[in-house]
Amino acid sequence: MTDILQNYLGGRWIAGVNGGVSLRDPIRGTDLVRVDATGLDLKAGFAFSRREGGGALRSLTYRQRGEMLGAIAKLLQGRRDAYYEIALANSGTVKNDSAVDIDGAIYTISTYAKLAQTLDDRRFLFDGDAAALAKEAAFQSRHVLVPTRGLALFINAFNFPSWGLWEKAAPALLSGVPVVVKPATSTAWLAQVMVRDVVEARILPAGALSIVCGSSAGLLDALEPFDVVSFTGSAETAGVIRSHPAIAQRSVRANVEADSVNSAILAEGEAPGEGAFDLLVKEVVREMTVKSGQKCTAIRRILVPCKHYDAVAEAICARLGKVTVGDPRNTTVRMGALVNRAQYASVREGLARLREEAKVLHDGASHALVDADPAVACCLGPTLLGIPDPDRSALVHDIEVFGPVATLMPYRDAAHALDLARRGQGSLVASLFGSDAAMLSRLSLELADSHGRVHVVSPDVADVQTGHGNVMPQSLHGGPGRAGGGEELGGARALNFYHRRAAIQASKAVVEVLGN
Amino acid sequence: MTDILQNYLGGRWIAGVNGGVSLRDPIRGTDLVRVDATGLDLKAGFAFSRREGGGALRSLTYRQRGEMLGAIAKLLQGRRDAYYEIALANSGTVKNDSAVDIDGAIYTISTYAKLAQTLDDRRFLFDGDAAALAKEAAFQSRHVLVPTRGLALFINAFNFPSWGLWEKAAPALLSGVPVVVKPATSTAWLAQVMVRDVVEARILPAGALSIVCGSSAGLLDALEPFDVVSFTGSAETAGVIRSHPAIAQRSVRANVEADSVNSAILAEGEAPGEGAFDLLVKEVVREMTVKSGQKCTAIRRILVPCKHYDAVAEAICARLGKVTVGDPRNTTVRMGALVNRAQYASVREGLARLREEAKVLHDGASHALVDADPAVACCLGPTLLGIPDPDRSALVHDIEVFGPVATLMPYRDAAHALDLARRGQGSLVASLFGSDAAMLSRLSLELADSHGRVHVVSPDVADVQTGHGNVMPQSLHGGPGRAGGGEELGGARALNFYHRRAAIQASKAVVEVLGN
Repeated sequence: MTDILQNYLGGRWIAGVNGGVSLRDPIRGTDLVRVDATGLDLKAGFAFSRREGGGALRSLTYRQRGEMLGAIAKLLQGRRDAYYEIALANSGTVKNDSAVDIDGAIYTISTYAKLAQTLDDRRFLFDGDAAALAKEAAFQSRHVLVPTRGLALFINAFNFPSWGLWEKAAPALLSGVPVVVKPATSTAWLAQVMVRDVVEARILPAGALSIVCGSSAGLLDALEPFDVVSFTGSAETAGVIRSHPAIAQRSVRANVEADSVNSAILAEGEAPGEGAFDLLVKEVVREMTVKSGQKCTAIRRILVPCKHYDAVAEAICARLGKVTVGDPRNTTVRMGALVNRAQYASVREGLARLREEAKVLHDGASHALVDADPAVACCLGPTLLGIPDPDRSALVHDIEVFGPVATLMPYRDAAHALDLARRGQGSLVASLFGSDAAMLSRLSLELADSHGRVHVVSPDVADVQTGHGNVMPQSLHGGPGRAGGGEELGGARALNFYHRRAAIQASKAVVEVLGN
Repeated sequence: MTDILQNYLGGRWIAGVNGGVSLRDPIRGTDLVRVDATGLDLKAGFAFSRREGGGALRSLTYRQRGEMLGAIAKLLQGRRDAYYEIALANSGTVKNDSAVDIDGAIYTISTYAKLAQTLDDRRFLFDGDAAALAKEAAFQSRHVLVPTRGLALFINAFNFPSWGLWEKAAPALLSGVPVVVKPATSTAWLAQVMVRDVVEARILPAGALSIVCGSSAGLLDALEPFDVVSFTGSAETAGVIRSHPAIAQRSVRANVEADSVNSAILAEGEAPGEGAFDLLVKEVVREMTVKSGQKCTAIRRILVPCKHYDAVAEAICARLGKVTVGDPRNTTVRMGALVNRAQYASVREGLARLREEAKVLHDGASHALVDADPAVACCLGPTLLGIPDPDRSALVHDIEVFGPVATLMPYRDAAHALDLARRGQGSLVASLFGSDAAMLSRLSLELADSHGRVHVVSPDVADVQTGHGNVMPQSLHGGPGRAGGGEELGGARALNFYHRRAAIQASKAVVEVLGN
C-alpha cells in the first residue's frame, strides 16, 4: 500500500481517519501516494491559524515578511530536483512544462520578496495621501490598508500544484495573512511536499501555512467574516462557492479564477510566412502543447483575417505534426500527459462537441504515443479545429476544452475580430499579433474591458515577449465575467485582496502620527 | 385616486400595468402617490441602457462626464425647495434631516464633478506606471482601467432616496457607466422626481439614467456578466442577491452595504463634563436623533470607561429628555418620524428584544408627540439602553434597531473596548473621542481592520469635525463582514467598482502610444 500524505493543520501533522484516495502516474497508471482529510477538526485548526499564524504575521513588518519569502524561495530552489521528479510522476509533464509550475512559483515568490523591500517598514500600508475635510486641513481623511484579521483559504486547481499555491501564498503572507491551502486532489503531492519542506525549515511562524489534502467538505463552513477565499477552477464550482452562506451571507471575500476561452488575434495587414504571422503560428503551437493545453490562460480561439485563414491553418498544422507525444522520461517526447483519465475523457468529450460545429484541421489521434500505452496513459495528440463561419457557431465561444485543442476562425475586419473575442463573455487573456504600434495600442484598449490581460506581440519583441499563457507576477491575473471576475498578482495590487481598507478621519495631529 | 409615478426605461416614460402600491405620509398616514413596475420589459430596457447609454457615455472623456455632473448638481440645487417638500411629506423628516439627504447628494455630485477636472482628459484611466518585463524595458506591462461595458443597477434603501441614488450615480456616470436605479418603494417619490428633472433637462445621453419604481422582481435576472449591482439594505436581502445566478454564476460584480452596529468609544483618561467627554455626549444624541436614527452609520453602541458609565448615562439622558418629537411642520419639533408603520413596528420589536438584556436609561415612550396622533404617526421618542456587563450580552452586538435607540456599555481597558467594538463582526464606522493624539492614532489603526471608517473627535476639531454618521465623499463608505464588505465613495476609489482593470503587455513602442 502507498504512503498516505499527512495534513498540516493547527500546527501539527495529522492523517485523515479514512484510507484516502490514490494519486496516480498519468503515464503508467500506477499508484503513487494517498490523501485523506476525513475527521480533521477544521474549526479548531482554522482558529489556530487566525490566532497564532495571523497574530505572529501581523506583528511583523512588510520587510520582515518579505525576508521570509526570500528564505522560502531559496529553500525551494535548493530542492528543485525532487519537485521535478514528483511533477513527472504525478502530472506526467515534460521538464519545460514542470518548470512553468515549479520555477514559475520560485520566480513569483522572489518577485514578492523583492517587492517587500520597496514597501514601508511598517505593519500597514497607506492608501493615497490625506484629503482635507476642513479649512487648512485641520480635519483630514487618510486611507489605510491593514491585513485582514482572518485567514486565506485557497481552493486550487490540479494543473499548477506548485505555482497555484505560491502565486497566492506569496502576496497573502507578505500581507500578514495566514494561509490554508486545499490543493486539487489529483496532484496534491507536490504542494504537500513543498509545504512540508517549508514547515520543517521553520521559516514561518506556527499557523502561518497549513495544508488540507483531500475532500473540500466542510472547509467553507469553517470560514468567518474576516477570512478570504480564493478559488481556481470551474465556473460551476465557483457558483457553488459564491452561494455558500460564508460568502453570500457572512461577506467572506471571494476571489474566483475560472476557465475561459482565450483568443489570439492576427492583426490585419500582416503578410503570411513572416513577422507577426509567424509569431502567431509559433505561439499557438506553444500554447496548445505546453502542459498539454492544461493552462487556464491557453489559446482556445485563433482569429485571423479571412484571406489568411488557409495559410494560418497550413502553418499551424505543419508544426503540430512534428509534436511528439508520450512518456516524458523519453527525451524525444515534447508533450506529456493530461492529468488523469477523467480529464482525458472530458477533453475527448469536449472535442466531440466542438466537432459538431467545427472541421478537424489537424487530428491529434494521428499521433502515435512514444513509450506509452494508449489504454493506460492519459496522452492525447494536439488537435486544431477550424470554423469558417464563426458567427453561426455558439459552442466555440462557450466550451473550453481543457487540453491540446484550439479552433481557428476567420474575421472580416477589426470590429468583427473584437466582437468574436468578446463573445467569450470575459476571458483571462487575449493576444494580438501585429506590427503597427498605433493599431495594436488601439485594439488593446478595446479588448481591455473583457480581458484581464492583453498580450501584444510584435516582431521587435519576438525574443523578449513573455508568452501569451505565462502569468507574470507584475501583471494582473484574472478576468471578468466567465473568467470569474477575480484579480490576482499584478505586483502590489495583489496585496489588496488580503487587506481591509479604512478611512481614518481625524485632526491633522492624529493623522500625522499614524504609524509612528 | 393618487397619481402613479412613471418608470423611465428604454429611453421612455412608462407606467406599470397594475394599480401599484401607495406611498404614505408617515406623520399623517395619508396617501401621496403610487408606484408600479409590473409588466416592464426589463431585458429590452437594460439592453437599451447598455447600448445607447453606455455607448454614448464611453465616447466622452472623464472631464466631459464631469461637466455633466456639474450641470446635474446645478439643476438639483435650483429645485431644492420642491425636494424638501417631498422629503417632508414622504419621509416625515425635519429640515436638517432632509438636508442630509438632499444637500448631501448635491455636495457629493459636486465633489465628483470637481474630481473629474483632476483626471486625464481621456476615455480610460492609467493604473500605475509601466513595469519592465524585459531588459531595458523593451517589453512592458502597463495596467489600465476601462469602464465596464454594462450597466450599473442600484437597489437602494428607504432612508436616503436622494443621497443613496446620487452617491452611487455620480461615480458611475463619471466612470462612463449607465445607471438603472430601483429606489426603495416607500420613499421612491423623491428619487423619481429627481430623475425626471434630470431626464427632462437632457443633461445626459439617452439611456444613461433610468429608474424602475416598485417591485425588484426580475431585475437581477436581466443582468449580464459585465453589469454591476450595488445594493444597500439588510444583510438578509444581501445574501439573496449574492446567491442569485447573475452574481454567483455569471460573475456580475456586486457591492453590498448592509446594516451594522456601529460604536462610539470614549478613550481612557478623559474627565467627565468637559472636552472629549462632552463631545461624545453631543455626538451620541445627534446620531440617535438625526433621521430618527435611520442611518446605517448611526451610533448603536456607546463604549465608555467603567468609572464614567454613570456620568455618561446621566449626561446623555439629560439631553435626550429635551428632544421634541412629532410633526416637522411644527418648527419646535426636532425629530420627525420613522419611515412607515412597518419600520415603527420593527423598531419596537427590536427594542423589546434588546430590553431582555438591557436596562432602560431613557425611555422614548416618555416623549409626548407634538401635532401627531400616536395611533397614526410613525413617531418614537429616543431610547437609551444600558448594559453594565456587555461581555455577557450577545444581542447588543448583533441586533441593529434601525431607529432612535442606542446602548451604553462600560469597558475595563482599551483592549476590552476594542474587543467589544469588534464583536459587531464588521461595522461601517467607529468613532473615538479623546485628546491624546498618539493614543487615538494607535486605536484608529486597531479599529481599521473591522471598520470601513474610523472617525476621531478631539477637542481641537470640535467645530470642524464632519460627524460620526455623515458620509463624506472623500472617505470610503462601507465596511467588512456584517456591514456587507462593500466599498463606496472614497474620492477616486469609487471609480474602481465601475471599471475593469487590465494589464496590457506590449513593446515599449505600443505602451508609449496607449491612448494617444
